[in-house]
Amino acid sequence: MTSQSNPATGPSRRGFFRGTAALYAAGTAVQGQSQSTAPGDVTRTLARYLVASKPGDLPENVRREGVRTLVNWVGCALGGSREAAVSNALAALTPLYPGGKTTILGRREKLDPLHGALLNGISSHVLDFDDTHLKTVIHPAAPVAPALLALAEQQKVTGAQLLHALVLGCEVECRIGNAVYPAHYDIGWHITGSVGPFGAAVAAGKILGLNEEQMRWALGLAASQPVGLREMFGSMTKSFHPGRAAQNGLTAALLAAHGFTSSEQALEAKRGWARVLSTTQKFEEITGQLGQRFELLLNTYKPFACGIVTHPTIDGCIELRAAHNLKPEQIERVDLDVHPLVEELTGKQAPAAGLEGKFSIYYIAAVALMTGAAGPGQFTDKLVRDSAVNVLREKVHITVDKSLREDQGRVSIRLTDGRILTRNIEHAVGSVEKPMTDTALDAKFLELAAVALSPARARKALDVCRRVESLTDAAAITKATAA
Amino acid sequence: MTSQSNPATGPSRRGFFRGTAALYAAGTAVQGQSQSTAPGDVTRTLARYLVASKPGDLPENVRREGVRTLVNWVGCALGGSREAAVSNALAALTPLYPGGKTTILGRREKLDPLHGALLNGISSHVLDFDDTHLKTVIHPAAPVAPALLALAEQQKVTGAQLLHALVLGCEVECRIGNAVYPAHYDIGWHITGSVGPFGAAVAAGKILGLNEEQMRWALGLAASQPVGLREMFGSMTKSFHPGRAAQNGLTAALLAAHGFTSSEQALEAKRGWARVLSTTQKFEEITGQLGQRFELLLNTYKPFACGIVTHPTIDGCIELRAAHNLKPEQIERVDLDVHPLVEELTGKQAPAAGLEGKFSIYYIAAVALMTGAAGPGQFTDKLVRDSAVNVLREKVHITVDKSLREDQGRVSIRLTDGRILTRNIEHAVGSVEKPMTDTALDAKFLELAAVALSPARARKALDVCRRVESLTDAAAITKATAA
Repeated sequence: MTSQSNPATGPSRRGFFRGTAALYAAGTAVQGQSQSTAPGDVTRTLARYLVASKPGDLPENVRREGVRTLVNWVGCALGGSREAAVSNALAALTPLYPGGKTTILGRREKLDPLHGALLNGISSHVLDFDDTHLKTVIHPAAPVAPALLALAEQQKVTGAQLLHALVLGCEVECRIGNAVYPAHYDIGWHITGSVGPFGAAVAAGKILGLNEEQMRWALGLAASQPVGLREMFGSMTKSFHPGRAAQNGLTAALLAAHGFTSSEQALEAKRGWARVLSTTQKFEEITGQLGQRFELLLNTYKPFACGIVTHPTIDGCIELRAAHNLKPEQIERVDLDVHPLVEELTGKQAPAAGLEGKFSIYYIAAVALMTGAAGPGQFTDKLVRDSAVNVLREKVHITVDKSLREDQGRVSIRLTDGRILTRNIEHAVGSVEKPMTDTALDAKFLELAAVALSPARARKALDVCRRVESLTDAAAITKATAA
Repeated sequence: MTSQSNPATGPSRRGFFRGTAALYAAGTAVQGQSQSTAPGDVTRTLARYLVASKPGDLPENVRREGVRTLVNWVGCALGGSREAAVSNALAALTPLYPGGKTTILGRREKLDPLHGALLNGISSHVLDFDDTHLKTVIHPAAPVAPALLALAEQQKVTGAQLLHALVLGCEVECRIGNAVYPAHYDIGWHITGSVGPFGAAVAAGKILGLNEEQMRWALGLAASQPVGLREMFGSMTKSFHPGRAAQNGLTAALLAAHGFTSSEQALEAKRGWARVLSTTQKFEEITGQLGQRFELLLNTYKPFACGIVTHPTIDGCIELRAAHNLKPEQIERVDLDVHPLVEELTGKQAPAAGLEGKFSIYYIAAVALMTGAAGPGQFTDKLVRDSAVNVLREKVHITVDKSLREDQGRVSIRLTDGRILTRNIEHAVGSVEKPMTDTALDAKFLELAAVALSPARARKALDVCRRVESLTDAAAITKATAA
């Protein structure tokens, strides 16, 4: 797979997604061929499909991926629930909503439904650990799930309804994202926040039972509320984006349900969302094969709490450590062959704080070899300053290899006894080609949940998420995850 | 004044604003000369000015215009308070906020502060009758005033503080608008909604006492929440835009006050607001002569409840009717010389409903001659279908005259006795050159307020607004305007 362009999905400017695009094309084979929807009909066609869709229409593999998406999302929200972005937002808002009844996952505080959605969106994204649709770098669940959980505490929603709405919401975000990516992202929009209101509006709209006209209005109200500039990356406002997108979409659906009118061609109109917020538009990505191909099947889950370009290295280190029961004192030198982006994005030699550790491939390799992991617990100030880790870190060397894909890498370790151990990583774990197993996802969930819940409650919460389709009341999820 | 470009303000693509630009340049003479702020310092310079500004720093004419802006805005909010957009939004939101304490002007329902700001923003814009900064077509007060009134019900705010914050909020919106207009508007953004969050954030931030760093964060949070596509014009979502902008800005200020971080170069950064949402940027418009020139002095108030291009015609008709005590049966033929946009935008010959009447220059001239007015009461279904008005309407003829400015026009009336009465309008009333008098503004207020308040309460409310600077508690405004 060396081509920069795949005819089935159009040119991909980001090499990391080449493998994904190929798999996707192989699995569905026809994207881009169905251009039968006239541009003037995009919003209408989408709304008609959404209103008609029923839980039973979803293929079994899509429902299964929906459950994995939910499990990963709830874990991330629990894991992020004690971060400063969440605490500060709660400090600002709780005084205004003394009687709030909407659960903030992992917290005792409660808010009104709309700001509850905001807060759960913030906490689920703040660790940069949530699910990713690699084709568009959208984090699909973060704007959708919070809107649904807030609604499920307002009215009776079954778990099957919630899962169905979650799938549709993610689907709409990713399809709209496909239509404008990468131009829209390159302009400077944080795509999760700018497409997020559509996903939340659609998901909430399904629960509220919107008819086709109301669904078009909900999409219109969502179109007028994009959130998020990439300029905010590195500040708390980044995680605000998916949260506000959740809130905006939920507001859109509530208003539409009460006759609040909007444009009915919000996506495709001359001054509609896709033309105002992007310089390119592929509308067939939005309406092609609705109900037949599902973008959710391309959703991925991060095994490691740091940038995706470092994952092949981490994979290799953890595998070699486990296979040879390696101890730090055995290691004389570590050589990494890496894609150029690894040096560009994570070339920091001597990080001084936990967050900086995420931007040092040297530290990341050392801590993975030392602990066998790269979760949130590996990026603390304490570990970054640990002298044993630093001794190992200074033994790590990198060689940039332009022939590698971004999800490819090589780790070589020279031991004190003269042996050289090598591991080639073809696809990092967490990619579509080598997804996290359910067992690994469950372990990730439990580690993240431990931030807010006792081990027993964390297990219970995981069990509730896994059983979502059988829940008669989806509010069981929030009940299981409140602190 | 025939030049399409004014060196003091840069090229103006919209001829209607030529006169305004000239007056503005004459009054201040130096815009565009102060480019001493480095582009990297725009947000910081603005925040520093805002944090340091005190009520006493405002010149007397600016404070006076601030009072006029407030009077006009409150009147519009009362007049719009019974429109369907407001009722539908309340139907959607009131069930979620049973204990709400924030006043919706002209209504009995109350909401939480953030959605109270949303609702008052909707009602104040829904009649398209609120204040206009003609250089940018921004409606300055609609996103700012609702955020302030909501805060004034939460904490003690004096009338002088409120007026000062209102002026600063409007100023920031218009300056940022100047920096990107017309490119930003032409792309398809409803500029009132896209700059509105800045205005609301700044105004609320002043009341909350933000320091300079917090003010930069508030601007950053506002930058990530632009609202509004022009595609929504003609639907309820249009008036949603300034309301949501008010809510977004208030949220931004509340979060920033509680340590929620954001970019500190949100306006000027490579991927900041001005570059992502516009193709041109004139940053010196934002930071030039802060505290010395005030865009609020260019704010205007509509005397008539329809598009601004029809105002010269209405002016002429009302003046001739009054001067000659005209009765419809005396009129044989009406000839209007109009700018080309009048035919383009309001060329409908036979409107069938009240709203359509606004897009028929024939109907507008007829109803102005018949009633001597063109307020909301002139655009009812009943009047549009009135046979006497229709008889007169069919006597109206237009001639497009490309040599006219948009705020210029000519009305000639041939009477049954053979006389011909003519009136040339150089500048329509409501323009910067011929502003509405305080007396006319008061009359507009009372007519609009009558929708929601008794005549005595309407007079009281007007009096409170006029006395804003002497109010020890600005919540007197909401108290006086609740239904």
